[in-house]
Amino acid sequence: MSKNKKKLFIITGVAGMVGSTLLPKMLSKKNSIVVGIDNFRLGKHKFIKKFLNNKNFYFLKADLDKKINNPKLKKILKSYKLVEVWLLAANSDILAGVNNPEVDYKDTFLTTFNFVNLLKPFLNDSTKLIFTSSSAIYGNVGSVIHEKSSPLMPESNYGAMKLAMEGYISAYSFSNKVKSFIFRFPNVIGTNLTHGVIYDLSRKILSPAKYLKVLGNGEQCKPYSSAKEVIDCMMYFIKIKNSNLVNFYNIGTSDKGVKVKEIVRLLIKKFDYKKKIVFEKKISGWKGDIPAYSYSTKKINKLGYRFKLNSLKTIKETINNISKKTLF
Amino acid sequence: MSKNKKKLFIITGVAGMVGSTLLPKMLSKKNSIVVGIDNFRLGKHKFIKKFLNNKNFYFLKADLDKKINNPKLKKILKSYKLVEVWLLAANSDILAGVNNPEVDYKDTFLTTFNFVNLLKPFLNDSTKLIFTSSSAIYGNVGSVIHEKSSPLMPESNYGAMKLAMEGYISAYSFSNKVKSFIFRFPNVIGTNLTHGVIYDLSRKILSPAKYLKVLGNGEQCKPYSSAKEVIDCMMYFIKIKNSNLVNFYNIGTSDKGVKVKEIVRLLIKKFDYKKKIVFEKKISGWKGDIPAYSYSTKKINKLGYRFKLNSLKTIKETINNISKKTLF
Repeated sequence: MSKNKKKLFIITGVAGMVGSTLLPKMLSKKNSIVVGIDNFRLGKHKFIKKFLNNKNFYFLKADLDKKINNPKLKKILKSYKLVEVWLLAANSDILAGVNNPEVDYKDTFLTTFNFVNLLKPFLNDSTKLIFTSSSAIYGNVGSVIHEKSSPLMPESNYGAMKLAMEGYISAYSFSNKVKSFIFRFPNVIGTNLTHGVIYDLSRKILSPAKYLKVLGNGEQCKPYSSAKEVIDCMMYFIKIKNSNLVNFYNIGTSDKGVKVKEIVRLLIKKFDYKKKIVFEKKISGWKGDIPAYSYSTKKINKLGYRFKLNSLKTIKETINNISKKTLF
Repeated sequence: MSKNKKKLFIITGVAGMVGSTLLPKMLSKKNSIVVGIDNFRLGKHKFIKKFLNNKNFYFLKADLDKKINNPKLKKILKSYKLVEVWLLAANSDILAGVNNPEVDYKDTFLTTFNFVNLLKPFLNDSTKLIFTSSSAIYGNVGSVIHEKSSPLMPESNYGAMKLAMEGYISAYSFSNKVKSFIFRFPNVIGTNLTHGVIYDLSRKILSPAKYLKVLGNGEQCKPYSSAKEVIDCMMYFIKIKNSNLVNFYNIGTSDKGVKVKEIVRLLIKKFDYKKKIVFEKKISGWKGDIPAYSYSTKKINKLGYRFKLNSLKTIKETINNISKKTLF
């Protein structure tokens, strides 16, 4: 393979919250080409619009849950040196998969399975696969989660299909001798929200409904980190030199998180809408929701990385940045 | 649901080694109906032939990797009380999945995913799901494997798709409030072999080829248990009363296993064929093969179960029972 070849970065799910936050960072690299793929099921066109004219960016609208055969993509894969594959195409709306196992199966399992299989002929010694997994693979550990917490008992289809792909990427790494990085996310938020508690509650608050119905009793308490920070963290770890083919990290902050009722309070204050707030009686927001957890960050701290903002500050920053324009 | 209803037991993969060994045990239960499903891709008609006339046995030839809509099966599910579902339909030939990820995806993932989804309307408080997983989900732990060994880094597609289904069954148990039992098998052997080292080597020995080519250097050393014993063990554990929805067990013996070269010696002796034996130089039999492992059996022993035969005795018993008739 020629050393003069430009480097190729691929981001699946490029129009999602994490993908669209990652994209400008990838486009700022020299001597590089970025391919972004999305089907706009959850991702939004407006999040990537301003990058579409960048001559180093190839956007491809495609459903990766089907096997694609795109001549342009094949040509790019043949022409450049594949260095990083950010496998972000996934269902991110946990609730959507609660009653319909097809959602996470198609949007998390198949999108990843099909795409990494398509890449096989184009892998090289420097290729890195980056997969964004989730705390949901652990299930309800009932305490602080560390990377070695076990057994893994996901309670949601969301967590199950993330775990399925962790396993597949592990086997894929060993079969193809290619490095992979599995990052288990906490709740990740940011300006380009497409789903989740802040997104849902904000849209409910801004709707004409008289009541603000909250899922669960409001006591659910989880850690939050920003898309920007998880991206910084992932970029830090994929550069660390080690001999592991497969690398696992819980990423996020180690605080105990923020209660849903506190998020409600902050959002009501921001949007200044008067609504009667109605909580449910149950401790979980939905079947398979883990009402409280926190992360041990010993592993990432030991390796030199520490998140700057705690959960509350992250939430305040996101709430500050969102608006009707970003939400609708 | 009427208490007079007959109990319904389902075995997917009924014509496989474990399924066909389990079947007569299920048929001996009183006031019970057994449904067995197989597509004969790995399972063999001859293994279940003698049971086909049993009036309490309904055999269904079906590919569970597709969504089936079988009126007879639906009628049975409506008429009887579903008590045990033995999810044994799976690819058991690890090698077949090494170069083709579709094999384990279809035969392990989809067969299980589709079938448990089909069962949802027929679950009741007493339904138990039994899934046979594998030591392969752990990857190369490099030491004694216990249930809490982690992180889980499967090296084969076989292990990856077993892990995927462990996760899915876990989420399924929590969503549907149904008990599940996940048994991580060692190498399992028995008279009704359909694949694996003894099957492959025996057929090679009995073939006209001058050489007996062995995969790997013969030093691979793994524990073996018989289909009969793993079934006894599983039947013991699904009866234990506890409050866990999802239950995990490594099942097998705790000895260090038997080397492939010793199995070769025993088979050559049994069949009395003179062949030049050719070993490979590599320590693994194939990509993703874990060349050596052993199980900690502390958990099952503590709960009162102990395997009777060690690996060597199990191998000798199986070698004693197999013949040209069972192998071809």
